[in-house]
Amino acid sequence: MTGFQIHPQLLADCHVLGKFDLCYLLLHKNSALPWFILVPQTGAGDLLDLPPASRATAMREAALVSDFVKKNLDCPKINFAAIGNVVAQLHLHVVGRTPGDPCWPAPVWGQLGDGPEYSRERVAEISALLMEHCGLIIAA
Amino acid sequence: MTGFQIHPQLLADCHVLGKFDLCYLLLHKNSALPWFILVPQTGAGDLLDLPPASRATAMREAALVSDFVKKNLDCPKINFAAIGNVVAQLHLHVVGRTPGDPCWPAPVWGQLGDGPEYSRERVAEISALLMEHCGLIIAA
Repeated sequence: MTGFQIHPQLLADCHVLGKFDLCYLLLHKNSALPWFILVPQTGAGDLLDLPPASRATAMREAALVSDFVKKNLDCPKINFAAIGNVVAQLHLHVVGRTPGDPCWPAPVWGQLGDGPEYSRERVAEISALLMEHCGLIIAA
Repeated sequence: MTGFQIHPQLLADCHVLGKFDLCYLLLHKNSALPWFILVPQTGAGDLLDLPPASRATAMREAALVSDFVKKNLDCPKINFAAIGNVVAQLHLHVVGRTPGDPCWPAPVWGQLGDGPEYSRERVAEISALLMEHCGLIIAA
């Protein structure tokens, strides 16, 4: 898909970490909890409208991130969602949750207060770990 | 999987409509908007922890419901999520959304107020449509 661009609101809210085969991987700037966002290169607006093969690829890439969050960022639980009521471009949330975290047990969407930003070094470190463990590549 | 039981909180909140190959299909009692819940027969707690084949089946069944909501209940948009912070049993939300609905643009989780219940006739009608269009069967 040529000419694909990540929605400016997602770029404003997140750090771009890199790319998988289908999805760009973003990290929400709010570091209160590990909140990753995958943006598949597609024109579809809803996850469940993707053709089965693309949907499987998107889910496989989301599962890589989920596994990373559980093993490397010590979260026992993942919240997964495709919402898109405000930003219509399809994007998948993979959010690491821990009982007692700043939003527990509420979902983060519309309910997580402001939190501190990541340092530049921490973002680079998380990117490097994802490249090592999940095959993330640097986004073109 | 023998001895599988749907979590009592889900049974309290929802009507059980029937069953697909892997998932039970429930309808949230709040009729303010079409809110379906799929409960896969699995011991896994997170969607992204399911083995790929089971995950693909669960997503295919969720896509059947999504397609039904768009075509038969006139919703242009689907919110899809697996959260499970309160009810730990894996369950997948397929929520039909329409700009201007009682919760728009917020996600429903923790943010949708009380709404009217469905009539018994309307629940039977929705079940019948799902059996006709999506291959839902009566739950054992």
